[in-house]
Amino acid sequence: MRFDVTILGCGAALPLPGRNPTAQVVNVHEKQFLLDCGEGTQMAMRHHKVRLMRIDHIAISHMHGDHYLGLPGLISTFSLFGREKDLHIYGPARLKEVLDLHQEVGESWLDFKVHFHPTTTDGPVVLFEDATVQLESFPVRHRIPTTGFILREKPKEPGIRKDWVKRFNLEPSEILTLKKGKDVVRADGTVIASSSACYPQLASRSYGYAADTNYWTPIAKSVAGVNLLYHEATFDDRLKARAKKTFHSTATQAAKIARDAEVGQLVLGHVSARYTSMEVHLKEAKAVFDATVMAKDGMVLSVPFM
Amino acid sequence: MRFDVTILGCGAALPLPGRNPTAQVVNVHEKQFLLDCGEGTQMAMRHHKVRLMRIDHIAISHMHGDHYLGLPGLISTFSLFGREKDLHIYGPARLKEVLDLHQEVGESWLDFKVHFHPTTTDGPVVLFEDATVQLESFPVRHRIPTTGFILREKPKEPGIRKDWVKRFNLEPSEILTLKKGKDVVRADGTVIASSSACYPQLASRSYGYAADTNYWTPIAKSVAGVNLLYHEATFDDRLKARAKKTFHSTATQAAKIARDAEVGQLVLGHVSARYTSMEVHLKEAKAVFDATVMAKDGMVLSVPFM
Repeated sequence: MRFDVTILGCGAALPLPGRNPTAQVVNVHEKQFLLDCGEGTQMAMRHHKVRLMRIDHIAISHMHGDHYLGLPGLISTFSLFGREKDLHIYGPARLKEVLDLHQEVGESWLDFKVHFHPTTTDGPVVLFEDATVQLESFPVRHRIPTTGFILREKPKEPGIRKDWVKRFNLEPSEILTLKKGKDVVRADGTVIASSSACYPQLASRSYGYAADTNYWTPIAKSVAGVNLLYHEATFDDRLKARAKKTFHSTATQAAKIARDAEVGQLVLGHVSARYTSMEVHLKEAKAVFDATVMAKDGMVLSVPFM
Repeated sequence: MRFDVTILGCGAALPLPGRNPTAQVVNVHEKQFLLDCGEGTQMAMRHHKVRLMRIDHIAISHMHGDHYLGLPGLISTFSLFGREKDLHIYGPARLKEVLDLHQEVGESWLDFKVHFHPTTTDGPVVLFEDATVQLESFPVRHRIPTTGFILREKPKEPGIRKDWVKRFNLEPSEILTLKKGKDVVRADGTVIASSSACYPQLASRSYGYAADTNYWTPIAKSVAGVNLLYHEATFDDRLKARAKKTFHSTATQAAKIARDAEVGQLVLGHVSARYTSMEVHLKEAKAVFDATVMAKDGMVLSVPFM
């Protein structure tokens, strides 16, 4: 099943060619979640061939412009495309105020319903879940209230082996038992082992996202064991003091979070516009956590199994 | 002296590749005016090599997103670039409310002063003038209060001919008189004609901008005689009814305004995303007003003398 991340913008506050403000689309089993929506996100979606009408969930980390300024325009484009499906937006309470004001001053209306779900920095929260996927927020530490997000595949029932169904003439109730991981013991004493009758269960993968944050060790707990982690690395370690002051992180610090959280892979973004090359970031992060890559606009990352 | 228009976005509400939302920079004698600022304008400026720190005046026609959503991000970029110069913004009163809210929710501050000048649709108004240029607004007719803008070169004093200064040994006071268009009569009866002693005065050029409007004949009066007119042409004439209903214009209607206003040249933009080609627009406009071109992102138009 598909679980991947398309980087629409990996830039920091100041957009550069090829480094749009922050936005990414996470596709979990063909459900699309937009994480942050900086200016120009709708154009980036078109450019990178992301089907924007399939986005039903948008999560905004915080109220700095480079993470949300593309949202009013995207909502307007949904409307021009004749959207009727409900849209769910998760973000700081004041985001609703901003979106409402844009609608009001433009005397605009929408033919679809927007459900606004305010986020909190009090602790981890499940924002959305269905049978296949779960969206959570967790607090990070930035100049203003900010959350990260986690997307998790829900555990899937393992598939039953057709040849075993035939061989033992399995009843539907027996199949259910086996799929739940329990062995079947028949009246005649036959034992059918779940581990033999079912295909091995695929592990559930997860993706963690911390786009604007100080180096803050509680994050390692929040994203513990995710298969892929996106963490900001606005500065390199020589500018550690500046990172602290501006509530950002260095590449080394991001790698420490990845190492301590024992994640599968780390992708670094939100690199300050002062850097034309990201070699230094990559090098210093890899020294702490080897499975690191640098984000790039248009990059598609599969969330790996561990 | 330089007087030209760089089209940063000629698109309508729905942005397309190569057709960004509305924005343009008008350079009048090296003073830069930004007219409208749709989403992505700051990236378009960078792409088309417009030096954004030289913009001190921004005029917004109305509060539909495709004309102003790039402004909060541009202001933030000014700030990141360490701007200290004052910035003048002209637009509907509620624009200030929107900009203030963005600053407030981001807990952001600016190290430069923003002077906000509310526009009105009651009639033509001079918004700014100095020795070389004048910015005016005039009402157009759209779904919400909207203005167009005119930029005019101020009449320049004609240059004095050096050979005449020498020949008649002209005094500074005499030069001033001649430059003002008056002849000099000396005590000895010598008459020095201004028209001979001065170079012919270059006519003052003007640029008119009506980016979102119904076909509305008073516009022809407002932009009468401008050297270059940008007029929206969202639809072609087959969709005249739709143009009327949505408070937009057809290419034919835009050309009628240009013809009735006796402008020098017409440039059409804001073509609906439904059109992949603009051939029809150009053809039908040229049938009414021949000196018509279609706008294109990145195009630089010199305001012509007539």
